[in-house]
Amino acid sequence: MSQLSNASTNIIIRLHFQKNLITFSEIAKVIGEVGGDIIGIDVISTSKTQTVRDITITVKNQKHGQNVMDVLGLLKGVKVISVSDRTFLLHLGGKIEVTPKNPIKNRDDLSRVYTPGVAQVCRAIEEEPQKAHSLTIKRNTVAVVSDGTAVLGLGDIGPLAAMPVMEGKAMLFKQMADVDAFPICLDTKDPEEIIKIVKAIAPAFGGINLEDISSPRCFEIEETLKSELNIPVFHDDQHGTAVVLLAGLYNALKLTGKNIEEIKVVLNGVGAAGTACAKMLLAAGVRQIIGVDRIGALNKNESYENQNWTAFSQMTNPDNLKGSLTDVIKGADVFIGVSAPGVLTVEHLQSMAKDPIVFALANPDPEIDPEIAEPYVKVLATGRSDYPNQINNVLCFPGIFRGALDCRASEINEQMKIATAKAIADVVSDDELSETYIVPSVFNQKVVEKVRKAVVKAAHESGVARKDLYKEEKSFQENR
Amino acid sequence: MSQLSNASTNIIIRLHFQKNLITFSEIAKVIGEVGGDIIGIDVISTSKTQTVRDITITVKNQKHGQNVMDVLGLLKGVKVISVSDRTFLLHLGGKIEVTPKNPIKNRDDLSRVYTPGVAQVCRAIEEEPQKAHSLTIKRNTVAVVSDGTAVLGLGDIGPLAAMPVMEGKAMLFKQMADVDAFPICLDTKDPEEIIKIVKAIAPAFGGINLEDISSPRCFEIEETLKSELNIPVFHDDQHGTAVVLLAGLYNALKLTGKNIEEIKVVLNGVGAAGTACAKMLLAAGVRQIIGVDRIGALNKNESYENQNWTAFSQMTNPDNLKGSLTDVIKGADVFIGVSAPGVLTVEHLQSMAKDPIVFALANPDPEIDPEIAEPYVKVLATGRSDYPNQINNVLCFPGIFRGALDCRASEINEQMKIATAKAIADVVSDDELSETYIVPSVFNQKVVEKVRKAVVKAAHESGVARKDLYKEEKSFQENR
Repeated sequence: MSQLSNASTNIIIRLHFQKNLITFSEIAKVIGEVGGDIIGIDVISTSKTQTVRDITITVKNQKHGQNVMDVLGLLKGVKVISVSDRTFLLHLGGKIEVTPKNPIKNRDDLSRVYTPGVAQVCRAIEEEPQKAHSLTIKRNTVAVVSDGTAVLGLGDIGPLAAMPVMEGKAMLFKQMADVDAFPICLDTKDPEEIIKIVKAIAPAFGGINLEDISSPRCFEIEETLKSELNIPVFHDDQHGTAVVLLAGLYNALKLTGKNIEEIKVVLNGVGAAGTACAKMLLAAGVRQIIGVDRIGALNKNESYENQNWTAFSQMTNPDNLKGSLTDVIKGADVFIGVSAPGVLTVEHLQSMAKDPIVFALANPDPEIDPEIAEPYVKVLATGRSDYPNQINNVLCFPGIFRGALDCRASEINEQMKIATAKAIADVVSDDELSETYIVPSVFNQKVVEKVRKAVVKAAHESGVARKDLYKEEKSFQENR
Repeated sequence: MSQLSNASTNIIIRLHFQKNLITFSEIAKVIGEVGGDIIGIDVISTSKTQTVRDITITVKNQKHGQNVMDVLGLLKGVKVISVSDRTFLLHLGGKIEVTPKNPIKNRDDLSRVYTPGVAQVCRAIEEEPQKAHSLTIKRNTVAVVSDGTAVLGLGDIGPLAAMPVMEGKAMLFKQMADVDAFPICLDTKDPEEIIKIVKAIAPAFGGINLEDISSPRCFEIEETLKSELNIPVFHDDQHGTAVVLLAGLYNALKLTGKNIEEIKVVLNGVGAAGTACAKMLLAAGVRQIIGVDRIGALNKNESYENQNWTAFSQMTNPDNLKGSLTDVIKGADVFIGVSAPGVLTVEHLQSMAKDPIVFALANPDPEIDPEIAEPYVKVLATGRSDYPNQINNVLCFPGIFRGALDCRASEINEQMKIATAKAIADVVSDDELSETYIVPSVFNQKVVEKVRKAVVKAAHESGVARKDLYKEEKSFQENR
């Protein structure tokens, strides 16, 4: 997947030009000269003297598209009639819809799905509330909840501007795992408000996916909701990243033959994602994790204003190492960056132990340029789709919620997350496994089903599955 | 439409029987004797000596279905293998789903609907928030909000048990008017909480349909939300009923040749729906409305604990009539009942003016038995689908929201509601119009489009349409 096609967008330009003044090949030449890639041509109308054509052009970004437009504007005999940007067109009117599973064909249907027939279903749920898990969308529906405070790399853009991301997430939930997800973008940043609201809307949902909520607010919100709701609550930015990172680590360690309990891990950037990654690794058996942030290695001798850092330093850094990243990365087996571009240097890599494993997950620009790092590392993973080993949440959230919903899990616990990481790692067979292929593609069909099975198993083993709820569902078919 | 088929439900019974001991015709006879109506038979397996068949039987209700089961259980050589209730089966897993409008076929698609492409759409909305109306589901999506305190005739059954009704409503929104609706069932009854929550979740929605919220809380909730949100807020139980009632009244008056400004209307049952009906009629030009409740005619000499009654008495009853229903209904042209079964008697009807028009809307049992009333009235309308002239909200909410969304109305005002009532009435042509056909069927294809056009026109004329918002939508296709 080339960098262009990933970051790129297609524009469709409707051109009117006079045949006696210019030929299409001349126009094509000009488009090519400014880096536009013509991928489609449709003749709309044509005559002896003039013609109108729709030209689909791949451009790097909107600015690049504008350049293409500008040069075309300068050509004699050429008139740009209209331009459309496919990314924007794909968003017109939104990306998801709410559809009936069965059509209402006649009054008989209407009397079953609506009044009066629906009344007996309402009463059945009133008598046995858990029947809502089988007789309503609660069985298969997840709320994608955000306050728009930490959206992609864009920061606090607010709930309206966050919608396209949440809609995209809902698309992925449905297409990858047949989970019905609906975006709830909240016009408040007050954690207590958000907690109240999510608790209040919970009846319709079988799970809550928290998304793009800034740290440290996301911790309080997730923890409180986990303890007060009896459905899974999962902050994907934290745990999705952590789970896929662990999946990648499992396979990277296979390649280097190192034991997860003996590796030294340096984690740079102790925010929401960094903290979740550390907890995930500790739960998976990693013993030596050193967290590094702006002020250097987090250790037990100092107390930090950021309570998250203090808590982090207590559960990590057993040898209580101090100093800068340069100091503590010496002899490390694994570097995990969830921080900023450029913080990692070749010198750092050279000071690491044999066969360095590097997860440079800063987006869109990793902690070190992959081309520069490549010669000095055994395994390199980033958050980008245009390099090998993309650590992408899409590998985790559809399958983990599919499994949680299928067994009516009351929560998504550490066992389920570790099982998910193992399942993702196992999708890569030993023959396939290589330095440039430690995690499967997001389009790998096997991932969701493997994850689903593993999550259901882990949920039962850890006692959070509520299978008994299946019974009353059966009872509608079975003898009465 | 017979009463049976309306209130009825179908059960599918899988029967195993031994041919040497009993024949199917004998079984059918027994089912018929207890009132079961066999509407389908499927042979599952058969041999010389025995056979298994699925028999679909229409029964009055679940209890009746049980009777059928019981008698079958007594038959020699017959074994009931399983029973399924189609109404419950239709609800398994819920009745709606959330689906992508376009499939994500490859990484190119993914990069447009999700990261990184989606970022430019988020930024565009951040810069111009009203673009959310064209680039997100806000353009076409309505929240169906309930706290489950006044669901159908079932009362306060809570948010979980209310879900099937809200899902049914969402089905109707989509199928009848291509509006995407999602159920928000709230686990709180505190009006202030509900107001806060609806305001907070509003970013994703282009309209709010309040549903089955008990009076008087529904007034405060609706009024506050109307004034504080810039999208339409519509409590369907109040205004949907009022709009369809007015539609019926327009056509009933055509039949009786009476002038809306000169009629005397007695309204029995001054709750949420009753108050909304009165306001609607006043806005439509009715001058003389007398509200009656348990304590008799609401008049200006008394002050009531129920503030709603005091307010009602101030805006109605110009001649300040007092006394019981029996007193004030004398000489009335129109009776509107949104109260309880049996409150209306033949004597009442006989005391009304010539050509009485009666809306007996109590559900499921009207204020007077239609068979009894029929000889004494010119026009009779009820809330039931098994009698002529059903006053059903389904005639109103899909089209009125379709229109409001299409013109980006900031609210649904009186003009739009009156326009809706006229549009619904106009669907019944003068040749079709009769005492037993004053409102169209809920399945009449013309209703939604007629209502939509009328609502858009009224919204523009009353200055609440925000057409300018169409512009930026176009701009994605037009020259830049």
